Amino acid sequence: MHPMPIIECIPNVSEGRRPEIVEAIAAAIRGVPGARLLDHSSDPSHNRSVFTFAGDAAAVKAAVLAIYEQAMKAIDLRHHAGEHPRLGAVDVVPFVPIEGVTMDACVALARDVGREVAERFAVPVYLYEEASANPARKNLEDIRRGEFEGLAAKMATAGWAPDFGPATPHPAAGASVIGARMPLIAYNINLNTDRVDVAKKIAAAIRQSSGGFRFVKAAGFELKDRGIVQVSMNLTNYEKTPIFRVFETVKREAERYGVSILESEIVGLVPAAALNATAEYYLQIGGFKSDQVLENKLRDA
Amino acid sequence: MHPMPIIECIPNVSEGRRPEIVEAIAAAIRGVPGARLLDHSSDPSHNRSVFTFAGDAAAVKAAVLAIYEQAMKAIDLRHHAGEHPRLGAVDVVPFVPIEGVTMDACVALARDVGREVAERFAVPVYLYEEASANPARKNLEDIRRGEFEGLAAKMATAGWAPDFGPATPHPAAGASVIGARMPLIAYNINLNTDRVDVAKKIAAAIRQSSGGFRFVKAAGFELKDRGIVQVSMNLTNYEKTPIFRVFETVKREAERYGVSILESEIVGLVPAAALNATAEYYLQIGGFKSDQVLENKLRDA
Repeated sequence: MHPMPIIECIPNVSEGRRPEIVEAIAAAIRGVPGARLLDHSSDPSHNRSVFTFAGDAAAVKAAVLAIYEQAMKAIDLRHHAGEHPRLGAVDVVPFVPIEGVTMDACVALARDVGREVAERFAVPVYLYEEASANPARKNLEDIRRGEFEGLAAKMATAGWAPDFGPATPHPAAGASVIGARMPLIAYNINLNTDRVDVAKKIAAAIRQSSGGFRFVKAAGFELKDRGIVQVSMNLTNYEKTPIFRVFETVKREAERYGVSILESEIVGLVPAAALNATAEYYLQIGGFKSDQVLENKLRDA
Repeated sequence: MHPMPIIECIPNVSEGRRPEIVEAIAAAIRGVPGARLLDHSSDPSHNRSVFTFAGDAAAVKAAVLAIYEQAMKAIDLRHHAGEHPRLGAVDVVPFVPIEGVTMDACVALARDVGREVAERFAVPVYLYEEASANPARKNLEDIRRGEFEGLAAKMATAGWAPDFGPATPHPAAGASVIGARMPLIAYNINLNTDRVDVAKKIAAAIRQSSGGFRFVKAAGFELKDRGIVQVSMNLTNYEKTPIFRVFETVKREAERYGVSILESEIVGLVPAAALNATAEYYLQIGGFKSDQVLENKLRDA
């Protein structure tokens, strides 16, 4: 048999202070056959919760609609405050291709879910990242700028009609941003120095915003308790900007300051393909196929 | 839910010329619930077939017994010839821990299966590799030396009583070697030179038998059609002799001859952990856990 297609979905919901609401949403996800809730966490100061679940397209769609059912009756953004920017009660819904599924399929799913959310809940929906056909509306930060409080004015300006749903915000639930993107890798490199200027310069050298790699976001920080500094990164497309190329570039840039790499660190999850590509690179492996990984072969048999 | 324990089993059977016998054995494996036949291949000049299947301990044990049922009625080593050395109709049966199972559990399984094979089929059984408590009887080549034709004399000499079963060979089926071992990685490194002496010297430097790494078998070959040479290896314990250390040593040894690595090649299957350890090494990743691999997390949830 072939492996089930796996799509990961990581909705961000504007509620992080009332545990009973968060638990009701988690229970709604768990209640969908084929949807597996992997993780959820709430930040009271952000007043926001992040849910991570996975399944095939049908299961993931059903789970998203179940989240809206709960969120729409419990959350009113007119009475919501928190440190994290937000546009809607269900603020952001990304679909991420993991296994046996293409990015195109996730884009199609984002459009399908966006249309249904707009129809069923009268919430305007903006498509983002890979699901957006509009270059000015790919970036989440651009879409969310102005937040819920500025949404009615923003929607009335040219170029900001939603992709689906009404032309004005839902009174209580605002708007939602739904889309498809690659898995994100949170990756830190610690340097054998206490000079934070070195970490900041290296971060500037490798991140897209200041001329570096297309799919790198980076910042330099001090780790004061350890007396060292860190280049902290998000790698937003490990296929096009691979982890080993970022590591080697940081290493070379550090050398010009007489600094070496102490260690690196993957925070949270990493796709197996990103690690396999790293092994292939350093071992100069030619013609490797993912079904040569024993565990993959065993699972697909 | 937790993942099912997965044990791989790769029996070598002394029949590679009669497809109907090979197919009957394959069908017997497929007929065991929970046993997944991943691959089988026959070599007529060796007159030998290799089956690869996987499952939990109970399924793998049932499949091995089903193989004996077929092999015992179809194979008579008194009328068997082939290039490959062999001691028995079912010649070698290794159990390999893959996922959610320890080496100790595979050793226990080897003993359990060995005892049952001896009782049910009156075949003497030698335990080998990790399942052997006797240092002189760990190595398959040592146990198999003398082959079927020399088996009766060998069994009569001191130190060669079998671990289970009768003190003399089974008249038609000889004896079996059953044990537990780590997954084996077949790994080749191609060098940018046509000097086969360089490949042979590097092979000698890295293999255990001539002073190299404990878990490396290696030989140097010419690839005449490509005008290059190859260091061809079996890595028999990737945890204790990791692939990256072997690669880096070959690279350094090649440098003394002014030779560089063209590419490397993994033949067949490789455990994910061997690739992950390689990525961790080169990226200097500290404190990585296998449940940080997205696919593992998804599967275990």
